[in-house]
Amino acid sequence: QGTRDHPPAHAALRDRLLAAVVACFKRHGAAAIDTPVLELRETLMGKYGEDAKLIYELQDQGGELLALRYDLTVPFARYLAMNKIANMKRYHVAKVYRRDNPATTRGRYREFYQCDFDIAGQFDPMIPDAECLKIVHEILSDLQLGDFLIKVNDRRILNGVFAVCGIPESKFITTCSTVDKLDKMPWEEVRSEMVGEKGLSPEAADHIGEYVQLHGGLDLIERLLQDPKLSQNKLAKEGLGDMKLLFEYLTLFGITGKISFDLSLARGLDYYTGVIFEAVLLQQENDHVEESVSVGSVAGGGRYDGLVGMFDPKGRKVPCVGVSIGIERIFSILEQRVKASGEKVRTTETQVLVATPQKHLLAARLKLISELWDAGIKAEMLYKKDPKLLKQLQYCEDMGIPLAAIVGEQELTDGVVKLRDVATREEVRM
Amino acid sequence: QGTRDHPPAHAALRDRLLAAVVACFKRHGAAAIDTPVLELRETLMGKYGEDAKLIYELQDQGGELLALRYDLTVPFARYLAMNKIANMKRYHVAKVYRRDNPATTRGRYREFYQCDFDIAGQFDPMIPDAECLKIVHEILSDLQLGDFLIKVNDRRILNGVFAVCGIPESKFITTCSTVDKLDKMPWEEVRSEMVGEKGLSPEAADHIGEYVQLHGGLDLIERLLQDPKLSQNKLAKEGLGDMKLLFEYLTLFGITGKISFDLSLARGLDYYTGVIFEAVLLQQENDHVEESVSVGSVAGGGRYDGLVGMFDPKGRKVPCVGVSIGIERIFSILEQRVKASGEKVRTTETQVLVATPQKHLLAARLKLISELWDAGIKAEMLYKKDPKLLKQLQYCEDMGIPLAAIVGEQELTDGVVKLRDVATREEVRM
Repeated sequence: QGTRDHPPAHAALRDRLLAAVVACFKRHGAAAIDTPVLELRETLMGKYGEDAKLIYELQDQGGELLALRYDLTVPFARYLAMNKIANMKRYHVAKVYRRDNPATTRGRYREFYQCDFDIAGQFDPMIPDAECLKIVHEILSDLQLGDFLIKVNDRRILNGVFAVCGIPESKFITTCSTVDKLDKMPWEEVRSEMVGEKGLSPEAADHIGEYVQLHGGLDLIERLLQDPKLSQNKLAKEGLGDMKLLFEYLTLFGITGKISFDLSLARGLDYYTGVIFEAVLLQQENDHVEESVSVGSVAGGGRYDGLVGMFDPKGRKVPCVGVSIGIERIFSILEQRVKASGEKVRTTETQVLVATPQKHLLAARLKLISELWDAGIKAEMLYKKDPKLLKQLQYCEDMGIPLAAIVGEQELTDGVVKLRDVATREEVRM
Repeated sequence: QGTRDHPPAHAALRDRLLAAVVACFKRHGAAAIDTPVLELRETLMGKYGEDAKLIYELQDQGGELLALRYDLTVPFARYLAMNKIANMKRYHVAKVYRRDNPATTRGRYREFYQCDFDIAGQFDPMIPDAECLKIVHEILSDLQLGDFLIKVNDRRILNGVFAVCGIPESKFITTCSTVDKLDKMPWEEVRSEMVGEKGLSPEAADHIGEYVQLHGGLDLIERLLQDPKLSQNKLAKEGLGDMKLLFEYLTLFGITGKISFDLSLARGLDYYTGVIFEAVLLQQENDHVEESVSVGSVAGGGRYDGLVGMFDPKGRKVPCVGVSIGIERIFSILEQRVKASGEKVRTTETQVLVATPQKHLLAARLKLISELWDAGIKAEMLYKKDPKLLKQLQYCEDMGIPLAAIVGEQELTDGVVKLRDVATREEVRM
């Protein structure tokens, strides 16, 4: 349940998509790493907040207690700490596992690919963070997914807001997860969850509401830096100062048009400590198609400066910032688009079919195809001793093979091959 | 235990290796599929003989009982049956899981990659089987792993041998697994296991010994076809007839020089029904290196005509033949070779580092690098506001980045960029 096989048409489309994402990661100088699908259970504990219940555990069959990885970020942090690496720019494309309620029509599965890019190391503020946003911008532009918006916030700003609204620090995280629902619920409902379930005072909730419904650009950052209360809060001031710097860098990158500083963005995971961001598509793709797919967030990430230290025996910190591309959701959109366009995705790359027009010519086919393979040419033949020529040409059409190399008795006598263009039926002897 | 992280140098080398293998599979017209790492436990049961104890099971957390896949063949058969596919040529490169005793120095892990190519469908005899052997030959030649030998046998011939030696059919499989040890033990030990543990009569064991120590080519096939006893056995006769056909096709492919018909080859898995084969490297690689790696078999496969039927509710059979490339063992060899040669594997593909020679030029770097990224050029910069030029050039040398694009105050004034060849120190303004 919640997993799927990828038949050839899927796999071919997904390979195309992953290649585009990986090309961007390599363009930004990232190296690939790979880590096991299995992690020690203890490695995953205490990293995912309430979502820890969604971790797949392996049966105790003797030896270590294992679980399937839940994301690629925690294994990356574990990898850095284990190998005492203080500096690294890496990408990782691999499957992760969550015992979630699958919503397969929206591209949500229990086994799914993540495509992560992360920069680890102590650097000058916001330069790596800005690059992560540039990467999201490049990928979403390259893939031509339609209009998109990248929401940006900072955990320090959120915590500052909570503090000046009189929320006790012990309730920051739980308040954060309620704020995070603002993209799916109206403010009224979020407010009533704050007051009801989370036990905030109505005044505090209203006060929070004034802040978290704000979004804008540099102007909003400037305004909040002047905010009499917020400007007195150390964390918020730090966060706002960095946000301003971030926007300067994004302006140099020329991408602020798609960036929104949005105080309602909270992100679910415990481990974020600074900038957080999330990209959403702004319009339905294929709204002319019957069942249009609502896909929500297609990329997200942020800064997590404390995670690596959790795995280091001496608690040595390695600041990190990274982005994860929601490849499965993007895949759902592309799949719909291919379906709507009627485009036939070729599932193989075969260039030529080796064919014979008469019987008793299997040996000639085997000899020729072997020569082609050895010359690096992608070639196929039918696995029949005496196939009909029509069947062989039909196979070319079905599979999109552009050429047929035909050896008949005449060609064998003349020492030539007849090369046929399947679409135009043009033939040359060579 | 028994798993490993792949740091960038590993991952880069492995990507290179996998690309070579996948290129061969595509050259032979295979389409990619992907299946989940998780399978229903019942899917894996009864397919792997005694090795079933090595299957990783997931904890029962409610819902289905799951396990990690043990190979890619059983999931492929399940996929064909589930989707009622009667014809398919596919490849699959993915990780599989075995709770084995790891021997990591020999490239044996509990999580490892398999690279499988399989042809499913009812075809004329031995044409797809011959292609599988051609693929092994191409890959091992392409990778220049040194001399190799592909041993070929047929389960029908083995069963025929057992029958004419008076072994009851109930002991075929267990006798098979004893014969399979002939590549690691001398005949005397194998014989004593047959007589001792397996309870065969000394005469039967000796009789088997006469057969299973034979190996050769077409001549041996012809001789066995004339063997007074074996030629009376229906299964053996069928197997030998097909083996002869196979050798004819392999002769047309020009690869019989590396093929040996070897009656000691048995292969462990239950599901083989016809041709079986295994490729071994003939000499130690890097025997000048201190710890030379013994790698054993580097590819194997065979025909399994009954497996798909086990997953079909009506038992419909889909004959299959396939090959699995032992990528981890090959990787161990290549890794040793790279180490011995002192070759430095680049882990990134960065073409140019954007650098500045004076302070206060971060904005210029950010603008230039953004232009380069948007033009599809692989570019990096140091994440510092004011890095020293020497540090920037040192980074190029460390990472093998061939070019530095330098913008200083003069270049900004002149509206140019200074492009520096890191190795030759040659510079051009452009």
